[in-house]
Amino acid sequence: MNVSEFRKRGKEMVDYMANYLEGIEGRQVYPDVEPGYLRPLIPPTAPQEPDTYEDIISDIEKIIMPGVTHWHSPYFFAYFPTASSYPAMLADMLCGAIGCIGFSWAASPACTELETVMMDWLGKMLELPEAFLAGKSGEGGGVIQGSASEATLVALLAARTKVTRQLQADSPELTQAAIMEKLVAYSSDQVVATLGTTTCCSFDNLLEVGPICNKGNLWLHIDAAYAGSAFICPEFRHLLNGVEFADSFNFNPHKWLLVNFDCSAMWVKKRTDLTGAFKLDPLYLKHSHESSGLITDYRHWQLPLGRRFRSLKMWFVFRIYGVKGLQAHIRKHVRLAHEFESLVLQDPRFEICAEVILGLVCFRLKGSNKLNEALLQRIGSAKKIHLVPCHLRDKFVLRFAICSRTVELAHVQLAWEHIRELASDLLRAEKE
Amino acid sequence: MNVSEFRKRGKEMVDYMANYLEGIEGRQVYPDVEPGYLRPLIPPTAPQEPDTYEDIISDIEKIIMPGVTHWHSPYFFAYFPTASSYPAMLADMLCGAIGCIGFSWAASPACTELETVMMDWLGKMLELPEAFLAGKSGEGGGVIQGSASEATLVALLAARTKVTRQLQADSPELTQAAIMEKLVAYSSDQVVATLGTTTCCSFDNLLEVGPICNKGNLWLHIDAAYAGSAFICPEFRHLLNGVEFADSFNFNPHKWLLVNFDCSAMWVKKRTDLTGAFKLDPLYLKHSHESSGLITDYRHWQLPLGRRFRSLKMWFVFRIYGVKGLQAHIRKHVRLAHEFESLVLQDPRFEICAEVILGLVCFRLKGSNKLNEALLQRIGSAKKIHLVPCHLRDKFVLRFAICSRTVELAHVQLAWEHIRELASDLLRAEKE
Repeated sequence: MNVSEFRKRGKEMVDYMANYLEGIEGRQVYPDVEPGYLRPLIPPTAPQEPDTYEDIISDIEKIIMPGVTHWHSPYFFAYFPTASSYPAMLADMLCGAIGCIGFSWAASPACTELETVMMDWLGKMLELPEAFLAGKSGEGGGVIQGSASEATLVALLAARTKVTRQLQADSPELTQAAIMEKLVAYSSDQVVATLGTTTCCSFDNLLEVGPICNKGNLWLHIDAAYAGSAFICPEFRHLLNGVEFADSFNFNPHKWLLVNFDCSAMWVKKRTDLTGAFKLDPLYLKHSHESSGLITDYRHWQLPLGRRFRSLKMWFVFRIYGVKGLQAHIRKHVRLAHEFESLVLQDPRFEICAEVILGLVCFRLKGSNKLNEALLQRIGSAKKIHLVPCHLRDKFVLRFAICSRTVELAHVQLAWEHIRELASDLLRAEKE
Repeated sequence: MNVSEFRKRGKEMVDYMANYLEGIEGRQVYPDVEPGYLRPLIPPTAPQEPDTYEDIISDIEKIIMPGVTHWHSPYFFAYFPTASSYPAMLADMLCGAIGCIGFSWAASPACTELETVMMDWLGKMLELPEAFLAGKSGEGGGVIQGSASEATLVALLAARTKVTRQLQADSPELTQAAIMEKLVAYSSDQVVATLGTTTCCSFDNLLEVGPICNKGNLWLHIDAAYAGSAFICPEFRHLLNGVEFADSFNFNPHKWLLVNFDCSAMWVKKRTDLTGAFKLDPLYLKHSHESSGLITDYRHWQLPLGRRFRSLKMWFVFRIYGVKGLQAHIRKHVRLAHEFESLVLQDPRFEICAEVILGLVCFRLKGSNKLNEALLQRIGSAKKIHLVPCHLRDKFVLRFAICSRTVELAHVQLAWEHIRELASDLLRAEKE
């Protein structure tokens, strides 16, 4: 494919993307396919000679779309949101064309420097303590990881390296195995200190946990994967109080802040804790500015060596929406969650199972787990909306998460009417 | 930004991408900026109110491009190639619009199933042993990881879990620490068994290492991050002989197979070795097909929970190029490396430092390391081409890697003329 064909096909693809997202409400949110549906639809081996582009495009609607769960449908209320916005898509296109790999400052200075500054922008939006910001000469700073799991693992490895070195310095006679036996990681039943759990969006009390960690010289990592985006609104910022006790903090703009996956934001107070754990310095990655102390080589901050120019997405999104636009997006989702909550509360057959703080409502039919499993099964079979369950203290609970950027009150009301009808059918069938 | 503005801006962006790549030869391959250049050029905080799109676009040339190392310039000969092709960019655009997160089969069946089949396609292109393929009912299969480092870590953790469980079963009296002390990982000075090292593209002898590992019941992971792509050509396939002894194998189509970053291909013979190590099953991720044994939930195959629809890139690239087109790409790069090698050999002042097998030429001026460091410094200052050094048995060596998809013989010849001139200047200056 030469550049002039790319111009043509690229513009057609932009229209396909626009049509897909504009018309997504008309697609069934959850697909009909059964496991193994795809393999028989395509050849068993790659073609020797090129296929035509037209063939590929027509296969998208024939082969791919029938198996897609439409995460951006306004009838998708499952899991947590995954971000989608036009500015982020435009930035990702640019990222694809530049196609640089930003493992060191020299590998593409703009890639590293925009990331550092964007992480400062975002940190300031959240009112993170100054110690987490890079600024011109700070000891802390931010880095984009691929996922919250990666951020947690990076924090864990950094903490382990730090503690191991302290133990080795204090007691040089200890063997590696003896040191390993001394290491302890504390976690709750949702793992590490969490702001906004996936199950029910509950919050750990950092003002209690934080001082204990600091006193015991324990590394405190805070994971606010979903909830973190809300902290850009002053009315939710108090949920982050206590972050000043943490060594590292992480949340996913790719969930709720309109920056398409992947973009997991992680900050540390001491960047040397990370670079000390991950430093990798073969000659072919060295460059002349390295010893200046002025530069950041992000390969020392993460597990993979390679990294895309992901900060472009943040830059486009933050500038096109402005902080106020981002706040409006968060507030709309929280408002819709409360609208759904009040609809549930108006029906005495249902109960709310956890305090609605952000965009997630945990609810169930009053009655047995079996009854609620049956309700979820009916919702799943009807495929008009998509949601998933969770367990809360042995209760089987339905999770209604406000997800789509384009979801409106009307969709939430329709979803609720649909759930009510299915519940009525179910309760009628149970009586018979 | 609404959908109609996206249509307009998206098409402009396609033209920007096309213009950038069409005109990349005219840009200086390595930037002039100094560390810290970017921060003063942009505001210290995100804007409260939206910026205009025009402002952002004009900032790309003003702020970003001056700090970009142009990896796709035909004068970029540093590191190893990172893939860039128009079909991959188109697929990535589609991936951005669909925006699904494929952590389980149900989260988007097409995302999981296309990946499994594409990994089979690719495995067959490489003539991997049948045991590594998923097929309809195989025990093995492939998965796309973000990077070779991730693949190595996944293999290491899977191996550790497997061995630990065996030890626990054989000797239930052993403590965790005692087990940890028994675990051994063998590696060469380039880490794990490697086909095509980054330093000089050397190859471990799998036919020697493999049987030893199998006999000792050791997990053998093979990393062919760069070289793996070449194995789609029959004339290079012998370099992969011995892969039949491995438990896991990995290479990066995002390096040399025209599939834009990130796309690191990993295969295992026993998928249960991975899923046993990483299984994560909260209720909100369960789905009705889970217990059928028919489906793949890729979250159990990797460290992160989330994953993009990356197999679309493979599908587009494999079909638009066809296997023959991909082979032609590899062969052109190898041919250009040999052209460069023969140019070097014609100049008695220079020597070749490692056998040229694929697309990398390691060379140096006959003489001291200091002399070669000075040559590299002159190349770096001139900024007409970009390359990086390595150490080979205490010798400071220059690496000339064929990288860009669009590099032609003329670029290689120009690069060599340039290097020769700088060497002449240097040798003249040394004499004076």
